[in-house]
Amino acid sequence: MSDPQQDFRVAREDLERFMGEALSAAGADQASSAAVTRALVTASRMGTDSHGLRLLPHYLKALAGGRIKGAPNMVFHRRLAATGFLDADDGLGHLAGYTAMQHATEMADEVGMGAVAVGNSSHFGAAGVYALAAAERGFIGMAFCNSDPFVLLHQSTKPFHGTNPIAFAAPVAGSMPYLLDMATSSIPWNRVQQFGAIGRELPDQVAANAAGQVSRTPAEVAALLPLGGSGFGFKGAGLGGMVEVLSSALSGMQHGFNLLPMGGPDMSTPRGVGHFFLAMKPDAFVEEGTFARGLAEYLADLRAQPATANARVMAPGDREWRCQTHRDAEGIPLDSANQLAYAELADEYRISPLASLG
Amino acid sequence: MSDPQQDFRVAREDLERFMGEALSAAGADQASSAAVTRALVTASRMGTDSHGLRLLPHYLKALAGGRIKGAPNMVFHRRLAATGFLDADDGLGHLAGYTAMQHATEMADEVGMGAVAVGNSSHFGAAGVYALAAAERGFIGMAFCNSDPFVLLHQSTKPFHGTNPIAFAAPVAGSMPYLLDMATSSIPWNRVQQFGAIGRELPDQVAANAAGQVSRTPAEVAALLPLGGSGFGFKGAGLGGMVEVLSSALSGMQHGFNLLPMGGPDMSTPRGVGHFFLAMKPDAFVEEGTFARGLAEYLADLRAQPATANARVMAPGDREWRCQTHRDAEGIPLDSANQLAYAELADEYRISPLASLG
Repeated sequence: MSDPQQDFRVAREDLERFMGEALSAAGADQASSAAVTRALVTASRMGTDSHGLRLLPHYLKALAGGRIKGAPNMVFHRRLAATGFLDADDGLGHLAGYTAMQHATEMADEVGMGAVAVGNSSHFGAAGVYALAAAERGFIGMAFCNSDPFVLLHQSTKPFHGTNPIAFAAPVAGSMPYLLDMATSSIPWNRVQQFGAIGRELPDQVAANAAGQVSRTPAEVAALLPLGGSGFGFKGAGLGGMVEVLSSALSGMQHGFNLLPMGGPDMSTPRGVGHFFLAMKPDAFVEEGTFARGLAEYLADLRAQPATANARVMAPGDREWRCQTHRDAEGIPLDSANQLAYAELADEYRISPLASLG
Repeated sequence: MSDPQQDFRVAREDLERFMGEALSAAGADQASSAAVTRALVTASRMGTDSHGLRLLPHYLKALAGGRIKGAPNMVFHRRLAATGFLDADDGLGHLAGYTAMQHATEMADEVGMGAVAVGNSSHFGAAGVYALAAAERGFIGMAFCNSDPFVLLHQSTKPFHGTNPIAFAAPVAGSMPYLLDMATSSIPWNRVQQFGAIGRELPDQVAANAAGQVSRTPAEVAALLPLGGSGFGFKGAGLGGMVEVLSSALSGMQHGFNLLPMGGPDMSTPRGVGHFFLAMKPDAFVEEGTFARGLAEYLADLRAQPATANARVMAPGDREWRCQTHRDAEGIPLDSANQLAYAELADEYRISPLASLG
């Protein structure tokens, strides 16, 4: 390829076109391809770059290796009126996620709330996109997922939990949804790698060396600390544990400590990732309109709070929706590593490269 | 009273007797009195001293002042098969909590899961005791509550959220339940007061001065920081917000920022606290026994993790159940302030004082 550009930005439609072609070429069926594309493009539009277009090469590799089935036979078992299990048949986690949340919202529409545990799944990208899918249909949505271990328990020396995310979204009348999507560690693992690459010190209380002691030196770091750091990490670890119990014990999957590493080298064995999705219908608790009014008042009060110098008080999602507006107008940026990766995919799958708007 | 004792410990039964008599004398009906006693004694037995017997004088004062009704007419509206609203009629939050969780587990037994939003309630003590009530009946339980503001938003200068707790409990076969009960701030407000009283510095990143800057000096502290501190407090604030949305918007109550202060001086106006309870039946997701097996394996692996020097890796609840075993055998300790408070209550309500085992 030509040298990476300083300012490489791609239109959403072009990125969707590229992802669809690449996923199809790698054996993903129409539903799987559409789900992955939707999840990654949603994350990239809102600025969640760690879980956006960056991940496409990974999923293609997992499809090629056989770890993930491109044409799975996912089966939903509605066990009771509000609950069920989705067997994802080792397909793409994104299809599992959207499918499970669709069932959760349908049950919620009928009986007030619904939840689906998902087993035999795979990495699903950003948890927030599934919570968001519920909010876009007028429901409160929650999404959880386990992963292979990067995070210490409190006062331990060995990674045990994944960065086990909690996502929570709620519809906001006349506005974009409320959207919280957070790992239960302070930082993701790739932050350690990024800071190491540019020789930068990590923030305090976010990572530890092999003895479990706080370290700010990326080269020494062996694990992430749970949210709360060395003093209050029992809280972050407890939240990570809640996510783990919901994602694995409730789906009959192995817990994250026993999962094969996402990054390989084994790209042929299914990992058996578990997820958990929950949807609630606001009007199933209070009179129609009450929730919308209360949430609007809460958000107005929140955004009116005084900020520290040079800061701005924001609600969960505010940053993301601002980024999305900007990127929908200006395009989604690709750094040099992603430019290279996408150029290689274009060659490998013989598809037209992304066109830069920059 | 006589001078406070160094080692004043009380038997559970005697504490229950005392609480029941005091609450009845203050106008609480049988159900309300039993609920408060159960909640406070459960918290005290497991060592959650901030939410145990210490709170009895507060509830008695709120009953006497008229803020809380001792004989409320709580009404449950089951709006759909899995969801409902409990109007707590300005009664004691403990009765509201146990009642709501009872309805949630009954719905969960029928349709797999159930949730109840509670409005017109009051302070309910420790959130964990209601999650625990679900786990004791074989359900996964979650409990949330808002409160008047003590905690900053991320990069703000004015308290906005309460310490808005998240409680999560799950049944463990042949053992005490898994029990996470955590505030979404690092420390509770009374920790600031305790540290101030003994001239001790606070931990880093848990509290701030009036300008929103981190302060470790109790006398300067104007607010708590959300979990995650100045760097990652957007996560703690986001969790606090999730609790707020569930507890107030979903119950039609004012959000916590607008609540009258728990501590008064107004002890006659109902505060309109909101709660949210959720119960799930494990077998409504996977085959019977699967969840129990998965959770047991997870806990065994967790407890086997290597610890840092002089530490021990524990699961949420381990510390509490060890304390409970100890206190059931040796009695529940009262510090000098609580000895004095209980002696005063004995005088005021003309009931036999607590007998010390010490």
